[in-house]
Amino acid sequence: MNNPFFDVRMKGFRAKKSVHDLIQAIDGEIKPLKTTEALELKNLARRISAGDVFSEINVPGFDRSAMDGYALIAENTNGATSSNPIPLKILDSAYPNQPSAKEITPGFTIRVMTGAPIPKGADAVLPFELASENHDVCLVHASVPPAKNIGYTGEDIKIGSLVLCAEKFIRPQDIGVLASIGTGMATVFKKPMVDLLITGNELLPPGSKPSGHQIVDSNSLMISALIERDGGTSRIHSPIKDSKEAIRNKILDSDADIILISGGSSVGQEDHTPSIINEIGELIIHGVSLRPAGPTGFGLVRGKPVFLLPGNPVSSLCSYDLFAGRAVRLLAHLNPAIPYAQKQLQLSKKILSQQGRVDYVRIQIQNEFAIPVANSGASILSSTTKADGFLLVDESHAEIAEGSIVNAYAY
Amino acid sequence: MNNPFFDVRMKGFRAKKSVHDLIQAIDGEIKPLKTTEALELKNLARRISAGDVFSEINVPGFDRSAMDGYALIAENTNGATSSNPIPLKILDSAYPNQPSAKEITPGFTIRVMTGAPIPKGADAVLPFELASENHDVCLVHASVPPAKNIGYTGEDIKIGSLVLCAEKFIRPQDIGVLASIGTGMATVFKKPMVDLLITGNELLPPGSKPSGHQIVDSNSLMISALIERDGGTSRIHSPIKDSKEAIRNKILDSDADIILISGGSSVGQEDHTPSIINEIGELIIHGVSLRPAGPTGFGLVRGKPVFLLPGNPVSSLCSYDLFAGRAVRLLAHLNPAIPYAQKQLQLSKKILSQQGRVDYVRIQIQNEFAIPVANSGASILSSTTKADGFLLVDESHAEIAEGSIVNAYAY
Repeated sequence: MNNPFFDVRMKGFRAKKSVHDLIQAIDGEIKPLKTTEALELKNLARRISAGDVFSEINVPGFDRSAMDGYALIAENTNGATSSNPIPLKILDSAYPNQPSAKEITPGFTIRVMTGAPIPKGADAVLPFELASENHDVCLVHASVPPAKNIGYTGEDIKIGSLVLCAEKFIRPQDIGVLASIGTGMATVFKKPMVDLLITGNELLPPGSKPSGHQIVDSNSLMISALIERDGGTSRIHSPIKDSKEAIRNKILDSDADIILISGGSSVGQEDHTPSIINEIGELIIHGVSLRPAGPTGFGLVRGKPVFLLPGNPVSSLCSYDLFAGRAVRLLAHLNPAIPYAQKQLQLSKKILSQQGRVDYVRIQIQNEFAIPVANSGASILSSTTKADGFLLVDESHAEIAEGSIVNAYAY
Repeated sequence: MNNPFFDVRMKGFRAKKSVHDLIQAIDGEIKPLKTTEALELKNLARRISAGDVFSEINVPGFDRSAMDGYALIAENTNGATSSNPIPLKILDSAYPNQPSAKEITPGFTIRVMTGAPIPKGADAVLPFELASENHDVCLVHASVPPAKNIGYTGEDIKIGSLVLCAEKFIRPQDIGVLASIGTGMATVFKKPMVDLLITGNELLPPGSKPSGHQIVDSNSLMISALIERDGGTSRIHSPIKDSKEAIRNKILDSDADIILISGGSSVGQEDHTPSIINEIGELIIHGVSLRPAGPTGFGLVRGKPVFLLPGNPVSSLCSYDLFAGRAVRLLAHLNPAIPYAQKQLQLSKKILSQQGRVDYVRIQIQNEFAIPVANSGASILSSTTKADGFLLVDESHAEIAEGSIVNAYAY
């Protein structure tokens, strides 16, 4: 790839790439992380398994009763009805982990609770509901076929069978199955570590009260929560002054899997980040035909992906969800697509866009209608908190007519 | 309500209630928790706000530039084109938190970076892209109207405006907005604390290797992960022996908001839990027309909701998702509905059910088809790990024909 770097400061972007180009570049450069870690079962939820797990045991490890009832010889129940019950002599009771030592022969039965080992000689279990008991005699009210209500050895899981395959998103029941085969740990892919650098002389850390011309950083905690949602772990470095050296050193010092830099990505005099990436690595794309979030950039420094997120909070959210978040999700072995539920809605009023540019339009959702949020500049973060979601107007449209059916993403 | 307790042990359920009856009982008895806690912003994601938050400041607190460019008097740009540029003398540069002390008068301009305070005298900002610079002269290539590219005081958030309302699920951008108004903490509803009691003489704790007639408890970690998903916090007490006194004391000692008891809910001799609840509280429903998970129970002990979950792992999952989880979600101020994405799918083969009973059928999902999982007894937990989801066959159907369109829940 020829060097696309062009110092945009105080000049503007020469030519912006399309949203599609940037997504292609991300998908081409980012591979899922290979590093793994072993975790206790209780910490596995929502992680991605890093290897196949086979069972070393049968579950259950013995034939057991699937019902509370009477273990018996199925043939002994032939013809039994409630008006013509068949009596069987009760020898004993068996409970889970408390088998009966007795053996069943024709005319005899043993009470068995759900999960109890099946006594020797029995080939079926009759549920309590289909019998009555009188002293030590069970009156059988219905017939059962052989094998009825017996859970045979390995019926849930057989020795050697695959219980969890690699690259699988671990659900609560997967953890249950791992416990049932006597496993205590499982190997999962490590979460991508994300260094999140927030730049800007005017910024105060979250939790501060702004005064004068100061602004409180709203991007770090917002992006950090999104990184967590996308299976990553974030370290916030904020706020960093707009100094070329300070930003360069933070990038070079990072041992994270990916770096996101918020602010300093546009065409202002203090927007050093694009030229830093160009000097110490490769700036693959800078400038995207997308409103807001046009000043998004993507590059590699020593093989590590680096994203430039615009400092404006709405642009930052948009750029994260479409691009940097895609990289985090890819590193984390998750589906890279935009992770919001999609809905088909009817557009309440016309949207103006521009051919050749994608527009990220915040909307409210009411009764199957998408209502564009009025005040929607890149700096109006409250437009995203008033919104229930957004839609993307693609490059081929200069407008979308009122009443059109649109594909909306619900925040 | 008349006492519905009936000792089902070794007799079976007299009459089961419908799924709908149990859901109605839950919705009637369970109210969202009122207790709150104040949390730092970084811990707010996915919590529910417990009060309205109003801004005490304007954001921004001053008029600022929305672009990198030149602050000027809009009128001075009238008629400017690239072939006929208008020169303006550059007085100074302004940066975020570094305003210019100079004032703009006709024929003059000041460079402004995005976020910089607007210099006195200016009423618009011309982006860098629409000008060129030669020594200290800016050549204006296009006209801009008054107010263009200025973000006015309070344009994002005005003093006194509502930025977060009570009962709202907090999203990443909500945290960003709270940071931007200088807030450091917010009040949210406490997560419901769930005591999860696992009963069974045969059970070993997760992480153990089973031998003989022992079984490793697979329910505690599975249910615990589901509770977490549903906005609760769980404390696992496992495994407890099938002793009436041990179970009763655990229930009476609990200071949790809700108690789930796994195992001992059916008709076996050792199934003490229903009679314990009847003795120390009120057993509202015991026995539901649902396969699996029929032996589900729901009651109140000293006003605290108690659920009896069947010990069979599939029944336990089903009973949790439909009933106990509903209670946890209600306590946690979340949507009580089954929290899985729903999909319309075509049924690959006939399902047999029974009129008057709801069936929970595990399915695999392939190319818009729902394929019922073959081996699907209540004890076959691996049937839920092989499955991609489930569907519910309602009481009115004895079967669902091959090719029917069904509403599936994706795990």
